[in-house]
Amino acid sequence: MSQFRQNPISKHWVLIAPNRSKRPEQFAQEPVISQNMPEIIPACVFCPGNESKNDDIVRFPKGKNWEIRVIPNKFEALSDVPLTADREFYVSRSGTGDHEVVITRKHNEPIALQSTTTVVNTLKVLQQRYLELAKHQNLAYVQIFYNHGREAGASLIHPHFQIISTPFVPHNVHEEILGCYHYYQAHKKCIYCAIIEEERKQNERVMYETEDFIVLAPYASRSPFETWILPRKHGSNFEEISEKETTQLANVLKMVLGRLYTKLSDPPLNFYIHTMPLAQAVHSAYKKETFHWHLVIFPRIAIWAGFEYATGIPINPMPPEDAVKFLK
Amino acid sequence: MSQFRQNPISKHWVLIAPNRSKRPEQFAQEPVISQNMPEIIPACVFCPGNESKNDDIVRFPKGKNWEIRVIPNKFEALSDVPLTADREFYVSRSGTGDHEVVITRKHNEPIALQSTTTVVNTLKVLQQRYLELAKHQNLAYVQIFYNHGREAGASLIHPHFQIISTPFVPHNVHEEILGCYHYYQAHKKCIYCAIIEEERKQNERVMYETEDFIVLAPYASRSPFETWILPRKHGSNFEEISEKETTQLANVLKMVLGRLYTKLSDPPLNFYIHTMPLAQAVHSAYKKETFHWHLVIFPRIAIWAGFEYATGIPINPMPPEDAVKFLK
Repeated sequence: MSQFRQNPISKHWVLIAPNRSKRPEQFAQEPVISQNMPEIIPACVFCPGNESKNDDIVRFPKGKNWEIRVIPNKFEALSDVPLTADREFYVSRSGTGDHEVVITRKHNEPIALQSTTTVVNTLKVLQQRYLELAKHQNLAYVQIFYNHGREAGASLIHPHFQIISTPFVPHNVHEEILGCYHYYQAHKKCIYCAIIEEERKQNERVMYETEDFIVLAPYASRSPFETWILPRKHGSNFEEISEKETTQLANVLKMVLGRLYTKLSDPPLNFYIHTMPLAQAVHSAYKKETFHWHLVIFPRIAIWAGFEYATGIPINPMPPEDAVKFLK
Repeated sequence: MSQFRQNPISKHWVLIAPNRSKRPEQFAQEPVISQNMPEIIPACVFCPGNESKNDDIVRFPKGKNWEIRVIPNKFEALSDVPLTADREFYVSRSGTGDHEVVITRKHNEPIALQSTTTVVNTLKVLQQRYLELAKHQNLAYVQIFYNHGREAGASLIHPHFQIISTPFVPHNVHEEILGCYHYYQAHKKCIYCAIIEEERKQNERVMYETEDFIVLAPYASRSPFETWILPRKHGSNFEEISEKETTQLANVLKMVLGRLYTKLSDPPLNFYIHTMPLAQAVHSAYKKETFHWHLVIFPRIAIWAGFEYATGIPINPMPPEDAVKFLK
């Protein structure tokens, strides 16, 4: 029997409909990166040998044997143009912002298979770029995200993060921050901290825990195998975490993506980090004590259809409790 | 150069990013229904010959030579269970509602290729089912939608509408109704009526007009070739339109889907109807004079990726002005 469940932060509903489900292992598809894919593809613009096709923003380490590069997105969604706005009958704003790509070296090595060192170094580069983009004028938010597989909107298979900064706080982030603020007003407590406590008590959706992080399938999962990585200690900003936490996060991320990789045969997925918007955006609900940064992994296994787009209610055929049992 | 545009009703932003675009005809993909697909597929549960596999809710006309059937969805997302709610730390509700499928006879005939009579009769059956489901207790909203192609979430290719009724007004619909209400409060005018007026003036995004309907690409299109069909005369309820309007709507829908079919080679798409919620759901913002029913066609051509899910801002590589020029 199906059940509507409400996301306690955004208050949005999902419909958990297990009678539309397959068995967990039947969600496995064609792997995104095939087993016999070589380490370097000469035709891939992100691969070693094609460095001249893109400028370096960062190359780490310097020289030919780089492990990580940051380059501008050639098909940038946003660019460094003056911020303007139009308010006639319709309202528009210039596409002001930054769009960068963070590449790891090997074409055939998704994060699940990378060394801890590579993942740690990538996270550090992401933090550095975050802090750098945060200095740009007129920007309110920096979004770090990852697309893996064509069904997840990746146009290139070569593993890469993307960073896009925006001149206003995007709707989904603003809505979350307001949800956190209202909960804090009522309970004098961060709602993510409350969720962690509740999840440890219920113990049905927790997949994994380390000293500093907890991994869980959210109660109102929008997709089969949706997974959240949360810092156990309250913190509002991903870019401010310690070296020790960064190393632990790298291991946890590798572990979760590794389980999805193994148990679901390298599925298409997105993941993204929600962190506190930049100082310029602050208004009264934007408080460090009320917002808790987090990483959301969103496998693209069930396709949203007309009902989802019409209503905003995702139909998820896989209860998160079953997803965790399967991945654990 | 890209541009953020705001939906004037929901206030949500999209990013129109033409430098990420292909030329319009390059969006064409493998057709959903291949040219040599036969009219009947013996293995298809929706095809003539397999009537015994599903109960009839409606069969029109009666007998073996039916043109349209309404059947229960075998993998129903919602069912006729008592409405219950749980409010502990998390909030849930029972999956109470109805889920029906409306099938037309021929396996290989999408709406674009159907006769006007078949489309008119289908719309009439949808209106009848709407009015019937509206009588069920505890229901607040009836969603009519259509999925075409696997990339649009259709599990079966055989042309079919779906109807799902829900025990509360879904988020997207409620948000639209509130947007309409606020505009009406400020301007003493329906916002959809204002959009129609503005679009006829700007004349860049209007694709087609009949006596009773206007077809346009919305200013803040979320996807390449997103298309709205709006009644020109204000009306809040799809199920209340006249026979003459129903016939005109069938022709307009066939025309728009026909252009997409021809010019983009039968692309995957969803469409859905937003109509006023049922009486039980009425609260002060739910007014017939402020809400304008409409049909939204949403081709599934650009895949939403990590940025979209993280921020709620769709990146649309195709300006609606170009989409209309191409389809016109």
